This record gives sequence, C-alpha cells and structure tokens, in this order.
Amino acid sequence: MKRFVLFFACLASFSLVAAQEVLNWKDNEIVSPIVNEDNSITISLFAPNAEKVELTGNFLYAGKDTPDKYADGDWHPQLMNKDANGRWTLTTPPLKPEFYSYNLIVDGVKITDPKNIYTVRDIGNRYSVVLVGGGVDGLYAVKNVPHGTVRKVWYDSPTAGLQRRMTVYTPAGYESNKRSYPVLYLLHGMGVDEEAWEELGRATQILDNLIAEGKAEPMVVVMPNGNISQEAAPGEGSKGLVVATTQYPKTMDGNFEKAFPDIIQFVEKTYRVKKDKANRAIAGLSMGGFHSLYIALNNPNSFNYIGLFSSAVNRMSKDGDTLSYIYKNVDEKFKTLCKKSPKLIWIGIGKDDFLSKDDDRLRAALDKESYKYSYLKTKGGHSWRNWREYLSTFVQKLFK
Amino acid sequence: MKRFVLFFACLASFSLVAAQEVLNWKDNEIVSPIVNEDNSITISLFAPNAEKVELTGNFLYAGKDTPDKYADGDWHPQLMNKDANGRWTLTTPPLKPEFYSYNLIVDGVKITDPKNIYTVRDIGNRYSVVLVGGGVDGLYAVKNVPHGTVRKVWYDSPTAGLQRRMTVYTPAGYESNKRSYPVLYLLHGMGVDEEAWEELGRATQILDNLIAEGKAEPMVVVMPNGNISQEAAPGEGSKGLVVATTQYPKTMDGNFEKAFPDIIQFVEKTYRVKKDKANRAIAGLSMGGFHSLYIALNNPNSFNYIGLFSSAVNRMSKDGDTLSYIYKNVDEKFKTLCKKSPKLIWIGIGKDDFLSKDDDRLRAALDKESYKYSYLKTKGGHSWRNWREYLSTFVQKLFK
Repeated sequence: MKRFVLFFACLASFSLVAAQEVLNWKDNEIVSPIVNEDNSITISLFAPNAEKVELTGNFLYAGKDTPDKYADGDWHPQLMNKDANGRWTLTTPPLKPEFYSYNLIVDGVKITDPKNIYTVRDIGNRYSVVLVGGGVDGLYAVKNVPHGTVRKVWYDSPTAGLQRRMTVYTPAGYESNKRSYPVLYLLHGMGVDEEAWEELGRATQILDNLIAEGKAEPMVVVMPNGNISQEAAPGEGSKGLVVATTQYPKTMDGNFEKAFPDIIQFVEKTYRVKKDKANRAIAGLSMGGFHSLYIALNNPNSFNYIGLFSSAVNRMSKDGDTLSYIYKNVDEKFKTLCKKSPKLIWIGIGKDDFLSKDDDRLRAALDKESYKYSYLKTKGGHSWRNWREYLSTFVQKLFK
Repeated sequence: MKRFVLFFACLASFSLVAAQEVLNWKDNEIVSPIVNEDNSITISLFAPNAEKVELTGNFLYAGKDTPDKYADGDWHPQLMNKDANGRWTLTTPPLKPEFYSYNLIVDGVKITDPKNIYTVRDIGNRYSVVLVGGGVDGLYAVKNVPHGTVRKVWYDSPTAGLQRRMTVYTPAGYESNKRSYPVLYLLHGMGVDEEAWEELGRATQILDNLIAEGKAEPMVVVMPNGNISQEAAPGEGSKGLVVATTQYPKTMDGNFEKAFPDIIQFVEKTYRVKKDKANRAIAGLSMGGFHSLYIALNNPNSFNYIGLFSSAVNRMSKDGDTLSYIYKNVDEKFKTLCKKSPKLIWIGIGKDDFLSKDDDRLRAALDKESYKYSYLKTKGGHSWRNWREYLSTFVQKLFK
C-alpha cells in the first residue's frame, strides 16, 4: 500500500464540499459577521445583483434616542451599503457585550447570514447570532472551565399520556462523584420548547461559568417541554419535521401544571438530586413564569426558591369547558404559599414589558400577604436579553 | 386579580413575534417545503423582486439519465418558476425516501429556505433539510418508540492536553435498569465533529428504531470529536463562535489515534458498558474510517467489530517531522489484527466514491491475510446518504 502518499486531493472531492462551490471568488472572500475590537459588528453579504439589502437585528440603534441607547428588541431594518464589487456591508456602533440575533433582507426576502453558521430557532423563525464580548460580564461565552453535561432525555408522563422530552443539565463532576445535588426546574415561554433555555438562553454557559467562579452552587437544571400536548421540540417528536407554531393545544389551561409531578418523579428517580423543599427551585419566563407560579401555588411545600421572569399571571384557556382546579381559590393559595415562607420569590421584568399589569397583580398578591419578594426591574421588554440576565442573577441566590 | 381574563393579546406583543413581522401577507401564506403524497417535494419562496431563483439540492435529477435515476449528491441548480404573485416554486419528481438537503439561490445569493426551520450544518455551510418518507425503510424518522438519551459530555484528554467534548447515546432503559451495555465508538469525517453523526447521520433515530424493532442490540454509542486539536464543535469550545474550516491542525497525523485510550478510559469509567473486546465496536466514515482502521490495527485485542465506511487508508500529514508510530509496520499490524480474528470487519463504499483506490488497498491488505471481511458496494459517492445506510446495516450485525 502506498500509505505515505498524502491525499490532499480528497479535499476537493468531498461531495458536499463540491456542492458548496462558491458562486464567485468575491463571495468566498467574505467573512461575516466580524466583531471588531471596539465591539462594533460588521455584517457583509456578497449580492451584486440585489437592489436593496437591509439588516435587521436586536442590536440596531432605534434612531430616536441618544446613540448610546439601544432599544431592546429593536429590529427596525437598516439599509446596508453596497460597494463597487457587489459587497453589501454595515458596521454598527460599538455594542454592549451580548448574544445578539439578526437577519438580512435581500430584495424583500428575509434570510439568515449565509456566511454565519451560527443560528438559533425562536418559534418558527431562524436567526443568525453573534456573541459580542461575553455578554453579562462574560457569562454567555464558553470558557476554559469544567463543563457540565447536557442531556436530551425522554420520560414517561402518564398524566399527559405521552412520552415527552426534556433537557437536563448536570454540573461538572456529576459523573465522577457520588454527591446529590439540588435541582432547578427551568421553564420556557410560549411557542418554544425544551431546547429554548439551552439554545436561546445560554443556560449551559451561564451555569458552567457561575459554578466555576464559585458564584452559584453546583446544581442540576431540568428544562422540560411546557407544551403539554407536544412530545418534544419540532422535529424531535414522532409528528415529523412539522411547522412550528406559537400556541399549542392545552396551553395554560392547567394540564401542564397537573402533569408536573411526573417530571419531578422522573428526575428524583433518575438523577442524584436532593428531594426536599430546601433543595428545589422552580423558575420560568413568561408562560414558564406562569407555570412556575401555579405549580408553586398548588404545591406550597415543594419549592424553596421561585423565580418569575416577565411572568404571565392570567391563564389562557380552560381545560375543555371547565376551569382547572389549578386556577381555583388563588387568593387562598397565595396565603398558604406565603405562610410556608419560601426562602425566595424572585421577580424580574423589563420596564417596557407588555406583561407589566400581570407584574402589578403578582406583586399586589404577595404584598397582601406581606411576603418580602425580591424584585428587579430592568430596561427593555419581553426578551431573551432580559431572561438570560435574570437567570444569571437568580441562580446565584439558590441553595445557599 | 382578573385571573379569568384571556390574554390572547400577548401573542401579538411578544417582542420576537413582533420582530418576525411578515413582509407581506403573500409571504405569510407560503409553506415550504411540502412533501406531497407521491413523495415529490414542493419548495416555495416569496420573492417578487428577484430576477432569478434557483434550487440546489441532493435530490435533483441529474438530467442526463433516465428519470428514475437520481445522481447521488447532484447539486446542479434548477431554475424555479415564478407566478404572477411573486411566488417561486419547484416541484421535484417523486423521490425515494431519504433525508435530503437543499439551498435556494436568490439572484446569486445562496440561502437556506426561510420557511423551513430545519437545517443542518456540514463543515462551514448550512443546508435546509427535508425528510421524505422515513428514509431507508423509515429508520431516519422519529417514531413512537422508546427513545435513548443523547448527552453532550466533556472528558479530560491528558494525551491531547485538552478538555474535549463528545456525544454519547445510551439506549432506552439505560436510566431505569442496572445492565451493562456493549459500546460502539462511531467516528466522523474531515471537517465535521462530535455533532455530525447525530445531526447529519440520524444516528439517534437509527439506533432508537432498530433497537425498538429488535434488529439491533441495545448499545451505548460514543461519538467523539476526531479533530484532536479542537476542544469541541465550532461554537461549543472556548475559542468562541469561530469560522468552521475543513481541516484542523494535526489531522490524520497519528495524534487522534494516540489519544483514543483517553476516550475509552473515560467511557468505561463513566457509563455502564462492558469492557471486553467482545463488547466493543469501532466504526467511522472517511477520516473516521481511517481513524477506526488505525486504532484497531494498533489495538488488535480491543475491538471485535470494525466498520469502515468510505474509508480513507492513507494518512494526511506527519506528526511534526516524524512519521507517527501509529502508521509504522502496517503490514505486520494487519497480519496481527487478522490473526486475532475480529468477528466482523465491515466495509461499505459507493461506486462513485473518490476513495475507491483506498478501498482497493484496504481489501488487498485483508485478502493478503485471507481475512473474510463483509463488503457492501452501493450507488453514489462520498455522502451522508450512504453513511446513514451503512450505519443502519452495520449496527444490526453487532454484539450478536
């Protein structure tokens, strides 16, 4: 055998590489996005035939305020600049460290950046993503620290009558020691699923980094699917590569909360977790905050830490014609929960959040019971930018 | 609290939903792709301002053969048809069940299908994907069967001097019983990483389905990262959201094979796996076949099953100025390996594969030792379509 012959030739022949033939050498030269030294981003697209290319993203200057004020979630499209070679570019002003999302609009067609392999799915849309700095003091970046394990695992939910999928994070060291860990149940919002906290929320990076810095206790984090009629994230269940929708059947009608004990039972049977109130936390964003609230209200002995991020308070639908028992006698349930003195009820919301009335009602209900919750009001609205920050703050307060 | 008020209004207010405002109601009406009853696919794009929209994918008719013959990996772009409303469409002829990849080319800009949330990354490119039928007799679809767990886990590689990431599949039931399982080490090709067999290879679905049907033994499948200088897949390591490249430093120079015992040691310490030759298999595609071959040649007592899919045989570079001991005395190592009579050496390759000379050399080396390997020659070339099929065939032959 000629076993010493190099075979660089194979590189050119890989069928998928061949399939990726560049359309033009000028296209091949483009790198996008580029994070510049001053934390501005340059986005580029080679599109000599396009008449108009716009950039839309949650880092764009709103245009109506001072240059250092970026609207949260401002996706107002901005025209990119075309050069003589057919390259369109736009460089933003310097940005705050953050995990940003964007799209390009090419003659009216909204696309992800073809040169950027990093995308996230949010409900039924894909966005290109770029990490500027580390985001909230570096917590969103993968660093050279011990890493936890992320599992996609299926459990049986007899209450839902389905096999269902969840994401489970175990901290670095879980595989090599015999310790039992406290556990955080971390719930997503409407239209997304058990992928969301990991993919959009950078939960893995936040936990790895905070645990490595000694700022958060090592914990197991369970991220179930909150759409009770759904087995798993789109494409991961037996219904195939379906179109994702915002709202699934049985949304916020009591059925997810009713089936929640199936999740706790599976987790406490399967993983080395501590099984008492002192070592259980529950938190969620938007619909997940709503779920967390009602699960805690209906199980007042179960959770010592409750995190409500941009939380909904009002249910969305009835279970058939009936109001679920989950949502009955709520005032009484607030009284009972507060009497049991959970160590922390932590509330976070943006000042522009459309759920601010829900926030008022939630705090009024706790005030009525003279319960001293923690409250963080931030800039911006109903966005992952806030929820990543809330998670980063909340997990540092747990199990201490 | 007005807890009985429905709040459908929130749907319209979710900031990211608002960000996803449709550009036009006609765009909002489009569903793409659609798999039709006859297994043809219809791809659609709303692009009234585009002058030319083409479709490129590995399902396109080569155009030079009979209509029932599809070239493997034929990405020859085909012009789509524009209607009066600005909608471009193309319907393929009926296709064989398969997990297909495609892109659209809009006035020269190659994009993923904006209406299709399902994409895969292959090296530095993203493709839209569509599953027609189940692929190889339904094995590529998620079915209503018991599902295994997929983990992304980090291990210490003292030989590489890095923390590194691997994907580990454990079969349904692993968490709830005390059995020990046989283990398959499954290696990827050049330019991809520990995500590839799961994302492009549908390994999770293939294993879940074959185990549920009783056609494969329940087994643990370990999918490490074969780029020894790399911690993890792009974006998952501490170097950040880097640009993916085809070839990483220390590719096929002996260093991955040398560090492979770190992987076995971690797996046998961490998971309930059987630790003898009879219960170990190793397989890989292209560079991963090369790795599998040399790991087996250098560890002739370790693996009872060896799978070489479109395998390279010749190394690519030296470890510095020196030829690694891994690649020395190869004829002798073939002799030793064959004398140890591994139960199965399984070779699969496409008739159009550019590595057919490597395949000839490999079989000649085994023939010289009168070793009776299994050999499958299929249509097509160096493609995931073949590798998914080879995996589906190979795993049915293991540990029986």
